Amino acid sequence: MKRSYAIIGTGGVGGYYGAALHHGGHAVHFLLHRDFEHVRHHGLKVEAKSGDLSIEKPNACGDAGDLPPCDVVMVCLKTTHNHLLETILPKAVHEGTTVLMMQNGLGIEQAAAEIAPQAGAVLGGLAFLCSHKIGPGHIHQLDYGQVRLGEYRADDSAAGLTQAVRDVGVDLEAVGIPVVLEEDLTLARWKKLVWNVPYNGLCTVMGATTDRLMAHRHTRDLCRGLMEEVVAGAAACGRRIDPDFIETMLKHTDQMVAYKPSMMLDHEANRPLEVEAIYETPLAAAAAGGCALPKIRMLAQQLRFLQTS
Amino acid sequence: MKRSYAIIGTGGVGGYYGAALHHGGHAVHFLLHRDFEHVRHHGLKVEAKSGDLSIEKPNACGDAGDLPPCDVVMVCLKTTHNHLLETILPKAVHEGTTVLMMQNGLGIEQAAAEIAPQAGAVLGGLAFLCSHKIGPGHIHQLDYGQVRLGEYRADDSAAGLTQAVRDVGVDLEAVGIPVVLEEDLTLARWKKLVWNVPYNGLCTVMGATTDRLMAHRHTRDLCRGLMEEVVAGAAACGRRIDPDFIETMLKHTDQMVAYKPSMMLDHEANRPLEVEAIYETPLAAAAAGGCALPKIRMLAQQLRFLQTS
Repeated sequence: MKRSYAIIGTGGVGGYYGAALHHGGHAVHFLLHRDFEHVRHHGLKVEAKSGDLSIEKPNACGDAGDLPPCDVVMVCLKTTHNHLLETILPKAVHEGTTVLMMQNGLGIEQAAAEIAPQAGAVLGGLAFLCSHKIGPGHIHQLDYGQVRLGEYRADDSAAGLTQAVRDVGVDLEAVGIPVVLEEDLTLARWKKLVWNVPYNGLCTVMGATTDRLMAHRHTRDLCRGLMEEVVAGAAACGRRIDPDFIETMLKHTDQMVAYKPSMMLDHEANRPLEVEAIYETPLAAAAAGGCALPKIRMLAQQLRFLQTS
Repeated sequence: MKRSYAIIGTGGVGGYYGAALHHGGHAVHFLLHRDFEHVRHHGLKVEAKSGDLSIEKPNACGDAGDLPPCDVVMVCLKTTHNHLLETILPKAVHEGTTVLMMQNGLGIEQAAAEIAPQAGAVLGGLAFLCSHKIGPGHIHQLDYGQVRLGEYRADDSAAGLTQAVRDVGVDLEAVGIPVVLEEDLTLARWKKLVWNVPYNGLCTVMGATTDRLMAHRHTRDLCRGLMEEVVAGAAACGRRIDPDFIETMLKHTDQMVAYKPSMMLDHEANRPLEVEAIYETPLAAAAAGGCALPKIRMLAQQLRFLQTS
């Protein structure tokens, strides 16, 4: 029988991947909060780039205690809601369940593993996805979709390509989602930060889309400078990122359309910002390795000001 | 006979000090550009905190070539207009003239000394003044007024209390302006940067008055961090600023009313920002002394983006 999935957080990320798995024949259970009543009556509307992935009668839950035991619990909340995991994970995770943390930032899996020690494996998933909730139970996936998957180890070592990683990878690939398996989840997370740290924060503070930052010599240099600090932070955590990767990310961003990173959208919508996961936890990890990252620290301080002022 | 003054730039700074000197019995000549016709017909209106300092029939010039030789040429332009000095100073400065640069930032006197080698002395003046031009030929001085004066030396050494510094100091004090004579102009300029670097830039980038930056833990820490970099930059230029000075500046700012630094006002009015004098020249001076100032660099980059985007 195909593996069953519980989706914690049915927004742009959870709604899209959950719907794809559902249409691939998996039993998928969606945990909803604000949209529960709406989805129960009207279904889940998912417009994907490849076509319609809507579900007329989804398995919708309003409380984690009503979720049946599932093989995989996929956490797709914004990290700003991770305080909810203390109540959700103990109910949703059973002996041997695979927990997959589809979130940005660093330190994500450690927190989950500590809350749900009964999990069989804790994985991290990095979604390279452009997908938003545009209304109650209404998801619009605009582009991309790749997931990079790796398994967490409490000692921060590289777990290699474990069975749990391969299993989830097979499931996602089978429903048309591009997957890359990562031997070293921590390295993969630092590499994603090379993009997320400059663009999420600077676009938000400067009120400018990526193309404007890239078109201007001084902010382009600043993006590179922030990326260099991320690479230095990774090195302080024992992870080597090739300096060429910075040029690759800059070129990649040059080729993107004018883009508003998720944090900029969050700020415009007055939602909390993922400052802790994307900035403060990496800063603390680098500091523990003896490395100060002054520009990233400054950006985090500016974001904290925006968030609470 | 009392020393005569030419005021280059009749805005909040030049208009106030020039009017004070005029009412003290000095021959004062005002160089004007945009407001020349207005002032010629309607006079100079100067409302000072201590009372009215207006001048009904000021000596107004529309071209530096029309200025008579004066004992002191006081430059009160924004540094963003310093490209004009290449035409103004050769006309206004005669053999033995004292040039007084009443501007913010670093590297100010060196540029003037190179343009006008015939000057008898080049002084720097640091105005602690809250005064604005609120209309054509209309100056409103709200508060403060202290001037710190020191003499420039081409080898960047401390000039001590020279005759030229004492002379101008006597003139200003006699018309009610608090004066501090500085033995080391470079040190005095770095000390003023301890306040100017954090508040001018951060208020502008964050769109927030000083009190809001100070009320928020993260931006308050960032202000302190930027001040620490200024102190490090001064040290790289051989100037020691006591770390206690940082706490003094923070406390001083706590006690100020909600304040919009001049750069924030410039930005709101779409005027050019003094990024070069306040940020880039100090960064270059510190770099020449082997010292990188990453937060100040980042703030300069953000300001350059704001300025030209």
